[in-house]
Amino acid sequence: MSDSGVVARLRAALGERVDTSATARRAARADLSGHVASGTPLAVVNARSVADVQQTLRIASATGTPVVTRGAATGLAGGANAGDGEIALSVRGMDRILEVRPDDLLAVVEPGILNGDLNAALADHGLWWAPDPASRAISTVGGNIATGAGGLLCAKYGVVRDAVLGVDLVLADGRLLRLGHRTVKGVTGLDLTSLVIGSEGTLGVIVGATLKLRRLIAGDVCTIAATFPNVRAAAEASAAVTASGVQPAIMELMDAASLAAVHALLSLDPPTAGAAQLTIQTDGPAATVEADAIADVLRGSGGSVALSHDRNEGERLLAIRRSMHPAMERLGTTLIEDVSVPRSALPAMFDEIARVEREHAVAIPTVAHAGDGNLHPNFVFDAEPDEFGVVEAPEHIWRAADDLFRAALRLGGTLTGEHGVGVLKRRWLADELGDDQWELQRQITRVFDPQGILNPGKVFTR
Amino acid sequence: MSDSGVVARLRAALGERVDTSATARRAARADLSGHVASGTPLAVVNARSVADVQQTLRIASATGTPVVTRGAATGLAGGANAGDGEIALSVRGMDRILEVRPDDLLAVVEPGILNGDLNAALADHGLWWAPDPASRAISTVGGNIATGAGGLLCAKYGVVRDAVLGVDLVLADGRLLRLGHRTVKGVTGLDLTSLVIGSEGTLGVIVGATLKLRRLIAGDVCTIAATFPNVRAAAEASAAVTASGVQPAIMELMDAASLAAVHALLSLDPPTAGAAQLTIQTDGPAATVEADAIADVLRGSGGSVALSHDRNEGERLLAIRRSMHPAMERLGTTLIEDVSVPRSALPAMFDEIARVEREHAVAIPTVAHAGDGNLHPNFVFDAEPDEFGVVEAPEHIWRAADDLFRAALRLGGTLTGEHGVGVLKRRWLADELGDDQWELQRQITRVFDPQGILNPGKVFTR
Repeated sequence: MSDSGVVARLRAALGERVDTSATARRAARADLSGHVASGTPLAVVNARSVADVQQTLRIASATGTPVVTRGAATGLAGGANAGDGEIALSVRGMDRILEVRPDDLLAVVEPGILNGDLNAALADHGLWWAPDPASRAISTVGGNIATGAGGLLCAKYGVVRDAVLGVDLVLADGRLLRLGHRTVKGVTGLDLTSLVIGSEGTLGVIVGATLKLRRLIAGDVCTIAATFPNVRAAAEASAAVTASGVQPAIMELMDAASLAAVHALLSLDPPTAGAAQLTIQTDGPAATVEADAIADVLRGSGGSVALSHDRNEGERLLAIRRSMHPAMERLGTTLIEDVSVPRSALPAMFDEIARVEREHAVAIPTVAHAGDGNLHPNFVFDAEPDEFGVVEAPEHIWRAADDLFRAALRLGGTLTGEHGVGVLKRRWLADELGDDQWELQRQITRVFDPQGILNPGKVFTR
Repeated sequence: MSDSGVVARLRAALGERVDTSATARRAARADLSGHVASGTPLAVVNARSVADVQQTLRIASATGTPVVTRGAATGLAGGANAGDGEIALSVRGMDRILEVRPDDLLAVVEPGILNGDLNAALADHGLWWAPDPASRAISTVGGNIATGAGGLLCAKYGVVRDAVLGVDLVLADGRLLRLGHRTVKGVTGLDLTSLVIGSEGTLGVIVGATLKLRRLIAGDVCTIAATFPNVRAAAEASAAVTASGVQPAIMELMDAASLAAVHALLSLDPPTAGAAQLTIQTDGPAATVEADAIADVLRGSGGSVALSHDRNEGERLLAIRRSMHPAMERLGTTLIEDVSVPRSALPAMFDEIARVEREHAVAIPTVAHAGDGNLHPNFVFDAEPDEFGVVEAPEHIWRAADDLFRAALRLGGTLTGEHGVGVLKRRWLADELGDDQWELQRQITRVFDPQGILNPGKVFTR
């Protein structure tokens, strides 16, 4: 069917939920990755209900039209970017909290609610949903689930996979499946909930989720900032903290370039040349004891250590880490990468980053969630923005990134710790999975979506 | 190919790994569920290596012969029982620990190692693998993964799903896939590791696993035993503990019939008629504070409370709970069920069990992992053992179980919290999943196993 025929059917079924304005269609081409889809989608459907999603998928299936599901479009891998001939299906407007059960430590929500808004509402019940991607103020719970998001607190409090009991999923043909359960334990059949987490829009449209909650952590929060003469020393110190058996809530590492850029942004005195920093928080009943133990480990590893028992002072120390992205924006355009390695390999991975910087003559300021081995190397480059103000990474940057990805795999690591594959990493997916597993995974997507209309060109396209 | 032809090919490839003795083949018909397969398998292959498993699967695929993977055969759902025309593939002999990394909190193991043996070895490193099914002394890690096992500590320390980073899987055609990763975070492609956990031998043969470890918990262990006038009061008290925000490590509930049976077994004074008991442990840095808080909640709920700060005294109190199974064996033959409900629904579920007892005139002594809402109703009956000493549950027991399963589903629960579907619950699987999801799950098994030779008749057979 022609594009206009598809739009006419959508409009007949969904009325003003269907937005074909140039502004909306252009906006649907991009996320926060810098990648932009080719061309513009034929329409944006702003779903308000499960029935809206089902209607859209039925029309898409009947007409063989691709569907790209979008939340708040804060992704960093291009996974939600919609292009020529595609329907952009936004679930951002489905943002209700349907149920909060403090006694069962669960909540049932629609996918479009922002992580930050959900947690503000849960706080009134003394509860929280632990996944805390850096984007939590602007990213949706549905998007967090679709990408399998991580964050700063993961080593202690887990990732999205650890915090979802069930998912309601609309299949490509419009059927609604209720996956998972409301119980702590449950092994009835295959765990399709886990399969959907991180599937990046290729298996269905997430229209609801049953979330596993935690109670807010009472007691002190202690914060430690420690500087080291170089990034390798800081990485070794973070590995020593992990090996010591103490479990920080947060352990963030900033290399010298990152630290210098943030100091400049915040008009702080410049750090010592080459110095790298660890910022660590402990919480819960043993926060003070653990902070003291960590401070000892850091001093033993050659760190210069400042320890605060004040929650506000701790937030000020962490503000340096949280200013990383605005600081990078001042340096040029950045491609934010996302490799993850076993924690013991963190020092070796920083050596590899230094090598890639040298050999490819690129600057790669890097921060790491050192508590879980997840690094965000920022490839900085200069390029002209296109008409939408977005910039694609040039090929020499991708060559450097390729070198870095392969180094992470050699160290027992993975291509992406929390951002997903999307468009930007699809060409490396088979390198990590192997051809047999890549093909098996692609076949599984076909069980959910026989026509291949769900987010085509993403993840499983070589 | 004829059975003797298949055996000849196995023997040519695997030599003395192939056991066709009557004793071995008969033993492979049963697990600990009471269910026995029809007929006897054509051979037992005692694999010692990944290559042995691959050889077996290649021959099975080439000849269209079904394969039933077995570990220590401690399952409670009949999932590992092998019958006529099938190859019983035992991985019990693949029991090595290949790697322990205290710095990365992971271990790489073969599937046949016993959970208890692994944890004994890990203790030397100050580490443990948290899943603690009641069978941990006699069940394998591979079996724990294949069933998605739970245990007593799950509300605080998680289930198997939370403790596996990766799985090595031999497919039906003999190809080896390495699923998952060694990192804390990783979202590269679909999460096939989670899909394999709890798949009960239908997707492939687990030949290795990368396990996520914890450090042994230092500090005190406090134990509380509280008695209540009846089981509903005990269930309400356990829900009140959960709702209070304190997190016990263990919270076990025994109803009056269970308690009386164990007291008789251990030659203790009989408990007050109708009385039910909660046994609760707290651990970690806040153990004492939490135990005191829990004791207050229990007293406020009408419990008679004894609190011990002594680890050995705590073990004596827990021994009553751990004697449940031998106590049941003295009452007759038991069908051990495994429903799970949201924690707030525990009192209502005990009401349903009392109703089923009345309406079906069966005794159902019940224990529950009250911290996570997982109940083990024991249907007691008299029946004659067959030639192998095993007894199948009669139809009137299944009618009572059917009534109980449906009650659990009505309360937002699930058929099986930790034992799996196997043979015994396959006829209820579609009731919980719905026909669409049931069919989708079955299709996914076909992607892994196009011929349907992996554990046929289990889980996805109506």
